[in-house]
Amino acid sequence: VTGEFAAIGGLRRRLARPTLAGETWIGDDAAVVRSSPDEWLLLAADTVVGGVHADLDLTGLDDLGWKAMAASLSDVAAMGGQPGHALVTVAGPPGTDLERLYDGLSAASLKYECPIVGGDLTNAGSLVVTVAVTGRCSGSPVLRSGARPGDRIWVTGPLGAAAAGLRVLQERASATSDRSGAGVPPSDAPQALVRAHSRPQPRLAEGMAARAAGASAMIDVSDGLLADLGHICEESGVGFRIDSVPVADGATLTEALRGGEDFALVFCAPETVSLRDAFHGLRHPVALGVCTADPEDRFLEGEAVDTHGWEHQW
Amino acid sequence: VTGEFAAIGGLRRRLARPTLAGETWIGDDAAVVRSSPDEWLLLAADTVVGGVHADLDLTGLDDLGWKAMAASLSDVAAMGGQPGHALVTVAGPPGTDLERLYDGLSAASLKYECPIVGGDLTNAGSLVVTVAVTGRCSGSPVLRSGARPGDRIWVTGPLGAAAAGLRVLQERASATSDRSGAGVPPSDAPQALVRAHSRPQPRLAEGMAARAAGASAMIDVSDGLLADLGHICEESGVGFRIDSVPVADGATLTEALRGGEDFALVFCAPETVSLRDAFHGLRHPVALGVCTADPEDRFLEGEAVDTHGWEHQW
Repeated sequence: VTGEFAAIGGLRRRLARPTLAGETWIGDDAAVVRSSPDEWLLLAADTVVGGVHADLDLTGLDDLGWKAMAASLSDVAAMGGQPGHALVTVAGPPGTDLERLYDGLSAASLKYECPIVGGDLTNAGSLVVTVAVTGRCSGSPVLRSGARPGDRIWVTGPLGAAAAGLRVLQERASATSDRSGAGVPPSDAPQALVRAHSRPQPRLAEGMAARAAGASAMIDVSDGLLADLGHICEESGVGFRIDSVPVADGATLTEALRGGEDFALVFCAPETVSLRDAFHGLRHPVALGVCTADPEDRFLEGEAVDTHGWEHQW
Repeated sequence: VTGEFAAIGGLRRRLARPTLAGETWIGDDAAVVRSSPDEWLLLAADTVVGGVHADLDLTGLDDLGWKAMAASLSDVAAMGGQPGHALVTVAGPPGTDLERLYDGLSAASLKYECPIVGGDLTNAGSLVVTVAVTGRCSGSPVLRSGARPGDRIWVTGPLGAAAAGLRVLQERASATSDRSGAGVPPSDAPQALVRAHSRPQPRLAEGMAARAAGASAMIDVSDGLLADLGHICEESGVGFRIDSVPVADGATLTEALRGGEDFALVFCAPETVSLRDAFHGLRHPVALGVCTADPEDRFLEGEAVDTHGWEHQW
């Protein structure tokens, strides 16, 4: 059995080909290919599987559709790009409620101005939804590989809300089943957390702002802050020292450090970069720490931490 | 339960948005979006499911990978475009032989010069492989909707080989199991048919030639000749009258009429168009018949025929 990242590493070596200057293929949030002399085309695809990425007993098919679209758009956000077009392919059993699935897909498509222009529908035993998106960048996109020692590390906002939202849903479901099917009582459980889980927001405006400000490296938090910061370090050849982590209201520190699918953006920028103008009208990013010269450094509040996250197995 | 084409029709109405002049979204082999003032970007995605599109007891995972890439490239071919880049997403159970799957994906990627630049790997109960591709067209792509009454109908070559190849594999497997597991004897079964099934060839050069010659409408034979010609008729508002069908050596007439996944191209062109120059160095297309003014016409050698093919159910 091979972990997901070892498998991707193997494919990356295997599929490596000479690229045009500035092109980036496998190994970043999105692939970067030249579309015209002064513009880059971004290409990204994400797959969401019913029962794996979304527990359909806890959230709806519309939420799964939203998440599939949001996950791909978040890859465009992490390059500092703007959305182009989307292709949606749905493999699933007969009887799958396509209308409800497309409620979520269309809602995200409309909100983030990324029209669905095609795709495929096919039967399969599991529900597997793939969204492939294009994006545009009129300057150089922000890669994972550009961080340098001394760069400051920023995050677009508090972390852990999506993981906490899943926990809230699981607690509610278990409370319901403990009462042998009695209705859930009116709950004051934090709806904002549930919404962060079921309707995660790709940070497109923030990604473009970070690129405009001069970010040196960027990634979206899909595997968890520590795991994703680890990806930046591997690609950039730097380490990290994190001084503090902003935790979303109602989330735990572990959820903020390890929880995936917040789709917050983590980026690095030279100390001289000012974010104020580029983030005008947006929430100002929160300082996490600094990139260090030793690529083995993985420090959180002075303690060494493990950056390995959960991986699919092959 | 809804058929695949009714479901696609519903999504097409639902997802319709104002498009730029010349753009085509859902409803053709590939979506057509403007990429620069003088170039079109083609976007297509196809999903291949183990056990649905490919019987993994009969063909290998490498063949499934090849077919997934070939199916998407065939969509680019059917617009008269040339391949750009591919994203591959694989959802499957732990233990899936990714190396073998990528043997086929890479072989097709190399042969048709469509590099794999990214994608996603994720666990799922079924094996679902999605290939999304970009393509380029420096003039207007050939749509399904441009056929006019009186246009001649052409096909790039004999049909039915892929369906016949599947039959050959099924016959071999059943002969083997009849002998309770004894080895298959040396066979003179037609390897060319098996190869047409396991390694179908997208007709990229032929698609570009048809566009250069002035084709008015085009589609790839993925659902079967009659079903796919039916799609051209629906989009163009014409009927068809087919005089003769070229059948691949070893295939039956039914396989030629109804068999999918040959990836031959069917196209229409005004009577005045000469194909000779554009198809120089390629096999000259075979004449099938003519487009008629009555959109209900579906005639084969004078007899009315049913154009409904097999559909996924929703």
